[in-house]
Amino acid sequence: MLDCIIIGSGAAGVSAALTLRANGKSFMLFGSAALSEKISKAERIRNYMGLPNISGEDFCKAVQAQLVEAEITITQEKVSGVYALGDKFGVATQEGGYYESASVILGCGVESVKQIEGETEFVGRGVSYCATCDGFLYKGKTIAVLCTSKRLEHEIGHLCSFADKVYLIAMYKDVEMGDEKVEIIRKMPLKLEGEKRVDKVVFADKTLPVDGVFVLRESVAPTVLVGGLRVENGHIVTTRNMQTNIEGCFAAGDCTGRPYQYAKAAGEGNIAAHAVCAYLSEQKKKA
Amino acid sequence: MLDCIIIGSGAAGVSAALTLRANGKSFMLFGSAALSEKISKAERIRNYMGLPNISGEDFCKAVQAQLVEAEITITQEKVSGVYALGDKFGVATQEGGYYESASVILGCGVESVKQIEGETEFVGRGVSYCATCDGFLYKGKTIAVLCTSKRLEHEIGHLCSFADKVYLIAMYKDVEMGDEKVEIIRKMPLKLEGEKRVDKVVFADKTLPVDGVFVLRESVAPTVLVGGLRVENGHIVTTRNMQTNIEGCFAAGDCTGRPYQYAKAAGEGNIAAHAVCAYLSEQKKKA
Repeated sequence: MLDCIIIGSGAAGVSAALTLRANGKSFMLFGSAALSEKISKAERIRNYMGLPNISGEDFCKAVQAQLVEAEITITQEKVSGVYALGDKFGVATQEGGYYESASVILGCGVESVKQIEGETEFVGRGVSYCATCDGFLYKGKTIAVLCTSKRLEHEIGHLCSFADKVYLIAMYKDVEMGDEKVEIIRKMPLKLEGEKRVDKVVFADKTLPVDGVFVLRESVAPTVLVGGLRVENGHIVTTRNMQTNIEGCFAAGDCTGRPYQYAKAAGEGNIAAHAVCAYLSEQKKKA
Repeated sequence: MLDCIIIGSGAAGVSAALTLRANGKSFMLFGSAALSEKISKAERIRNYMGLPNISGEDFCKAVQAQLVEAEITITQEKVSGVYALGDKFGVATQEGGYYESASVILGCGVESVKQIEGETEFVGRGVSYCATCDGFLYKGKTIAVLCTSKRLEHEIGHLCSFADKVYLIAMYKDVEMGDEKVEIIRKMPLKLEGEKRVDKVVFADKTLPVDGVFVLRESVAPTVLVGGLRVENGHIVTTRNMQTNIEGCFAAGDCTGRPYQYAKAAGEGNIAAHAVCAYLSEQKKKA
């Protein structure tokens, strides 16, 4: 069994991985080979100690090279659920993968695009976060897809292979969806409506009837990811040691609160990794 | 009045300074042009995100260049006391300087050399931390000097200009004190003894009679620096926001606890700087 699974390849996850590696721990790092869209798109980072006035792109390149040097690979699967199973954790991915570890570090970021009114209410009743898992349910149907990142476009492509009509509510630039089925909408909806299931997306100026709504964000809300996780005002609550309310489950970076800064996230990732090492040796003593 | 005074030029202090600068705040950064002995002497730093496998020396050079670029200068005075004066702080230095600021960030590190038994007991009664302040009191006398860093040797030189006999208990390599008055000792004393004032330094194999003891460390204990500061197990207690128990006084880096890591210190410096910004705007609203 792995010592740890790190979820998220932003500054927190990468820093945690480097520190676990330096401490000889076994782990998997889930995320994107591109690391973090927030980092790579940053124009200039002016206050990260050691890398003066660097562009987000160059920052990413430096970190990617460092990961290669440290022989850390990123598992590019989207984590769909984290399950606390007594003295271990199970981590499932949208791609159908399942992994186990003694501890977990959540570095899943925060979503800059707010939840839509009705979104949480209709989860599992027409609202889905996983094109791969639920796309086939909408064969011949009309769906709306709220997508926050160009990197998730391939999932829309997957949905197009089932649905007849796709309203793409695109929260990113340079949309490249040539499919005839796709109608691009550039406004945020006000809310989702329906009786038992969602059946309407309501905008300020119109209402679209739909059979389902897919919400594709870079990060999944931590409470959706980990059942029972304590969250306040959208941020995971941790101790100074980065421990969450769930034993063996730590969190670091933007998901734990402001400031949303690389240095802060990297620092917390470092602390979380050290806390994992301490946790593992305690568990060993108990066994 | 300055927005902030940062005490300590290690990773925490530097990171805080870069962030305050990026936020347009006025501040002074107290420390050493060489930044931090702990950093510069590190052989390899393997887990600092963005700077793979870098030597402590190169790390220091990178940070020094960054400070120059950001037009941040380090005030090379040793802070001897921080005083909470209602809605502002007064900061005094051993060199006789006095400065005021609306807030303070303590990035003063932790002392790796432990306190000697009796040290705290005899502070002000023969034990001094300041050669410049108290050296003249020992004209023609015999003193012991516990010194933890080569960088503080010039202070021993100052003491030699007064004292007749100096026992130098050197906790560092490459001692270069040619003065005839100086007798170098390579062992840690067990304790300090005396009646009203300290008058003996006790070693395992001998006892030296002295008129005074100077303890020259890179960092001053935070409780000596700031009266009333809440400290537990040698570490300053802070919230997740790096706020100490004293309003307007924040802390970051090794002085707040383990892990003693650059990433952690830089991250906390960043958080503390943001907390200072929030604190300043709250104070403005109140005024």
